[in-house]
Amino acid sequence: MTERNPLPAVTVLGLGSMGQALAGTFLDAGHPTTIWNRSPGKGDDLIARGASRAATPADAVRAGEVVVVCVLNYDAAQKILDQVTAADLAGRVLVNLTSDTPERAREAAARAAELGVDYLDGAVMVPVPMIGTPDALIFHSGSRSAYEKYEGTLKALGGQSAYVGEDHGLAAVFDLSVLDFFWTAMHGLVHGFSLAGRDGVRAAALVPFLKANVALVESAVERTAADIDAGTYPGIVDNLAMEAEGIEHIVHAAEHRGLDATALRGVLAAARRAVDLGHGADTWTSTIEGIRNPA
Amino acid sequence: MTERNPLPAVTVLGLGSMGQALAGTFLDAGHPTTIWNRSPGKGDDLIARGASRAATPADAVRAGEVVVVCVLNYDAAQKILDQVTAADLAGRVLVNLTSDTPERAREAAARAAELGVDYLDGAVMVPVPMIGTPDALIFHSGSRSAYEKYEGTLKALGGQSAYVGEDHGLAAVFDLSVLDFFWTAMHGLVHGFSLAGRDGVRAAALVPFLKANVALVESAVERTAADIDAGTYPGIVDNLAMEAEGIEHIVHAAEHRGLDATALRGVLAAARRAVDLGHGADTWTSTIEGIRNPA
Ligand SMILES: NC(=O)c1ccc[n+]([C@@H]2O[C@H](COP(=O)([O-])OP(=O)(O)OC[C@H]3O[C@@H](n4cnc5c(N)ncnc54)[C@H](OP(=O)(O)O)[C@@H]3O)[C@@H](O)[C@H]2O)c1
Ligand SMILES: NC(=O)c1ccc[n+]([C@@H]2O[C@H](COP(=O)([O-])OP(=O)(O)OC[C@H]3O[C@@H](n4cnc5c(N)ncnc54)[C@H](OP(=O)(O)O)[C@@H]3O)[C@@H](O)[C@H]2O)c1
Repeated sequence: MTERNPLPAVTVLGLGSMGQALAGTFLDAGHPTTIWNRSPGKGDDLIARGASRAATPADAVRAGEVVVVCVLNYDAAQKILDQVTAADLAGRVLVNLTSDTPERAREAAARAAELGVDYLDGAVMVPVPMIGTPDALIFHSGSRSAYEKYEGTLKALGGQSAYVGEDHGLAAVFDLSVLDFFWTAMHGLVHGFSLAGRDGVRAAALVPFLKANVALVESAVERTAADIDAGTYPGIVDNLAMEAEGIEHIVHAAEHRGLDATALRGVLAAARRAVDLGHGADTWTSTIEGIRNPA
Repeated sequence: MTERNPLPAVTVLGLGSMGQALAGTFLDAGHPTTIWNRSPGKGDDLIARGASRAATPADAVRAGEVVVVCVLNYDAAQKILDQVTAADLAGRVLVNLTSDTPERAREAAARAAELGVDYLDGAVMVPVPMIGTPDALIFHSGSRSAYEKYEGTLKALGGQSAYVGEDHGLAAVFDLSVLDFFWTAMHGLVHGFSLAGRDGVRAAALVPFLKANVALVESAVERTAADIDAGTYPGIVDNLAMEAEGIEHIVHAAEHRGLDATALRGVLAAARRAVDLGHGADTWTSTIEGIRNPA
């Protein structure tokens, strides 16, 4: 940090476990950092490390060039921003790292536009201990110029931070879509272990095979995306009708063993609908047509 | 191949697309190979490459030291083996690479025991074009001595071939469990793309983030297995109650966009049951208790 090129002053509104990690990371990176929290008694260690405490949200906002909000949800964020005027926010960039839906993000963007403030909506994709690491991913969407101007500041929070588009809802859309995959896959993982466990197989015995199988999923990501974007699903090595048969066997084996197989039944139903829509000889990716056409 | 140590003679019963690939791979590896198929007119190219055609299943079995069966299902395999006597099979190893359930595999093993033949039950985990490659995985279970004696022969079909235990049902159990994970994850992948697509996001834009996320699943496999085998699920960075909340948001976002979310609702229901059973502060792996205790 040189005097000619000081790091921007930042403000963090909200000192829950995530807000504290964000403020601490900004301090470590050398940013002048101002903090505020609704209830007193949070952030004393941040003050000890050099942060300034503001008495009100308006004072906090005026102290920062980049203003980060990270609280429970958008209602809470709105309650804080209701205490701040357009004049307080003038010339600043507001970055909302509170998690919520795309719809709420777009509403928040509309209010930010009324206040005339540059607005970025972000979604933090990693747990608290990963904040500030090179591997941490935070999605940002909204004002492109604001992201470009403060990319370095925002990347201090997560090295994998990415700008995903001007529609302020997109950070939340990417968040939901990636986690949609993640939790579904994590269910499949636990379910696979539970199935083998019923026949006396220790989970450890399956580990090498499941790891190799995860690599197959990884190698399918790109081709699956290309087929979806093209809207065609040519079945070359696989075909959906045969795959649906195979899945039905797994459902029966699981239920026969007294396990819940509701999720896999949902997987099967979406595949079957795609078969009914004429995709029996197409590849697995054609199940998107079953997903898009609920029963 | 030297005269002192010739490769064992093999027989392949069933010349569907998989049987033909198996026989062709044995030929390429230098095994004397005898083939038989119910309907005539299949395998002419294998004969041209040096295979011998047997007129009956009994003739075919007598010609091989390792006898591989790979047909539609176990009923079909049984119809073939009904044409073969204990004397025909004496001293041979029977390897059934037909896919079916663990229960059917155990029934087949009981019949093989009556015939006094060493029996291996296998599950082919790769499509036809991968047969014979170093990456191809085939699970085997049953006679350990037979597997050890013919491991080299069986690995010609798939370099990743693995022996998973003496219970003849285990190859099918491993097959079902790995595919349980795989198809659930592949559903999640397509579902994630479908969700983002509703807000105008091209699938290609999600690819790098989903790939990075697959790596997170991979890194979770080992720890998940260890927790399951230990029967304890300490929540250190994650907690199930919070995760269930997050999944509910994804379900709503998907349904709000007119997408089928039945599978993810099943994921959520299993997580909620585990929370109800007292695992709200535990890690995701505790969902196994929800899976083991259907509604
Ligand atoms: N923790 C993680 O690992 C993680 C990971 C990814 C994303 N996130 C997201 O990050 C955000 C914050 O999470 P967190 O873990 O920091 O939560 P947390 O520890 O529960 O903290 C919640 C914060 O919100 C504030 N708040 C709640 N209601 C408020 C209101 N009406 N007015 C003003 N402030 C209010 C709280 O202030 P008080 O101190 O006054 O109660 C506190 O600062 C959430 O949207 C969460 O989904 C968290
Ligand atoms: N293809 C793959 O990529 C793949 C991958 C993994 C596992 N598998 C498993 O491998 C096995 C064979 O699959 P495949 O793809 O080779 O199937 P396929 O091409 O449909 O061939 C089926 C074979 O079964 C025979 N068959 C059917 N009913 C019979 C009966 N009653 N008596 C005698 N023979 C009968 C057929 O003989 P005819 O010629 O006389 O009809 C044919 O040889 C299946 O269990 C399958 O699940 C296949």
